[in-house]
Amino acid sequence: MNEWLKGDERLDYLLAEDLRIIQSPSVFSFSLDAVLLSRFVGVPKRGAVVDLCSGNGVIPLFLSARTKAKITGVELQPRLYDMACRSIDYNQLGDQIEMMLGDVKEAPSTLGVEKYDAVTCNPPYFSAHELSDKNLSEHHAIARHELYLTLEEAIHSASRLLKQGGKAAFVHRPGRLLDIVTAMRANRLEPKRMQLVYPKRGKEANTLLIEGIKDGKPDLKILPPLYVYEENNEYTEEIREILYGE
Amino acid sequence: MNEWLKGDERLDYLLAEDLRIIQSPSVFSFSLDAVLLSRFVGVPKRGAVVDLCSGNGVIPLFLSARTKAKITGVELQPRLYDMACRSIDYNQLGDQIEMMLGDVKEAPSTLGVEKYDAVTCNPPYFSAHELSDKNLSEHHAIARHELYLTLEEAIHSASRLLKQGGKAAFVHRPGRLLDIVTAMRANRLEPKRMQLVYPKRGKEANTLLIEGIKDGKPDLKILPPLYVYEENNEYTEEIREILYGE
Repeated sequence: MNEWLKGDERLDYLLAEDLRIIQSPSVFSFSLDAVLLSRFVGVPKRGAVVDLCSGNGVIPLFLSARTKAKITGVELQPRLYDMACRSIDYNQLGDQIEMMLGDVKEAPSTLGVEKYDAVTCNPPYFSAHELSDKNLSEHHAIARHELYLTLEEAIHSASRLLKQGGKAAFVHRPGRLLDIVTAMRANRLEPKRMQLVYPKRGKEANTLLIEGIKDGKPDLKILPPLYVYEENNEYTEEIREILYGE
Repeated sequence: MNEWLKGDERLDYLLAEDLRIIQSPSVFSFSLDAVLLSRFVGVPKRGAVVDLCSGNGVIPLFLSARTKAKITGVELQPRLYDMACRSIDYNQLGDQIEMMLGDVKEAPSTLGVEKYDAVTCNPPYFSAHELSDKNLSEHHAIARHELYLTLEEAIHSASRLLKQGGKAAFVHRPGRLLDIVTAMRANRLEPKRMQLVYPKRGKEANTLLIEGIKDGKPDLKILPPLYVYEENNEYTEEIREILYGE
């Protein structure tokens, strides 16, 4: 196994899909949000999909189990891009998944405008001015904060990549809902499906999943809520099924 | 009892608050949405509150149990206005609740601009072009459709009535979420709290409660979801508590 790994990396299971992924606690580990987005987005059976802000490639890996479409992951950080490429190789998914090292803002001009059926994006959550923890590693900072990419820029790129009728799905914090839907509409992405994720019953939502259709007709549906933890702090049945296929 | 009632009217209980309300099935009966909005809105302990599109006055009646504030209900239809006035008299709430017969669009100029601490509004839900059922009574049609009042007009009036820092709360269909938040922001009402109501577990949301603060800072919180019915079609415990105080 060791020839696949560098430094403190480890090879984790994506249990529900019988895949494995290279992770490093000091650089980046995928979050539940990415898993939920992979499951939430409406993917075409075939065609072409782009995942923006791909990190170590967790969303392309998950999506490969749901579709025969070609999947391109876009990641700015060479270290994460490299981990993603090795995970793709390890899982022998090189025919289906390709990684692009580069800026999400450049993705439409590099990959092609209005050529894709679906785009996913788990963008940096925190605005640059929220970057207060000086000890945060640079990798974490870029992945988690809007240092190199604002929410509006991510939505603009997603829209440019999409064909008419294509779907763009995002995961973010509920506090940014208004910014997201405003930017989506300003970029011809009509919000059509939304799902809220609550850490526990009785708590406020802490995650928002939203999908828009390029040039779609206005009509937003709000799906049943998802709960992550039971009272006893164990994953709920629905989350266990998503994570482990139980 | 009969001196209070006209035609096919009946005197229904608002059980949770130990109040009674005059209703008529042929004209208008209040809905669960109105009850949920009365409970959702943040009301000041004292001060002044306006309820727009007040119907038979159910929201002012419910609010009277939550606050000592003066409450003004605005209703366009004389028949519903008259029922509301008689219910207020019957409950001996004339010192706290007043009804205004008139157009919501005229409410700020009649009642005063920037004088109120909170505004509630359960507006007509359906756009005028959705008015297809020719047999619908005129009272129902006006109460349920945007014939005399669009959503944007209701939100504009609510904002004009409110002091800076005052709260406006609306109940509507999830499909209009984007229109609501867009109109709220355009009228200086920053959305701050949202709650979704689901008919049953596993179903899509069918009702949206949203509250904004005039000139508030952007930061939307999404409260835990509400479920109306159990699998066996009985009200859930939380709804029974809201309706019956059980």
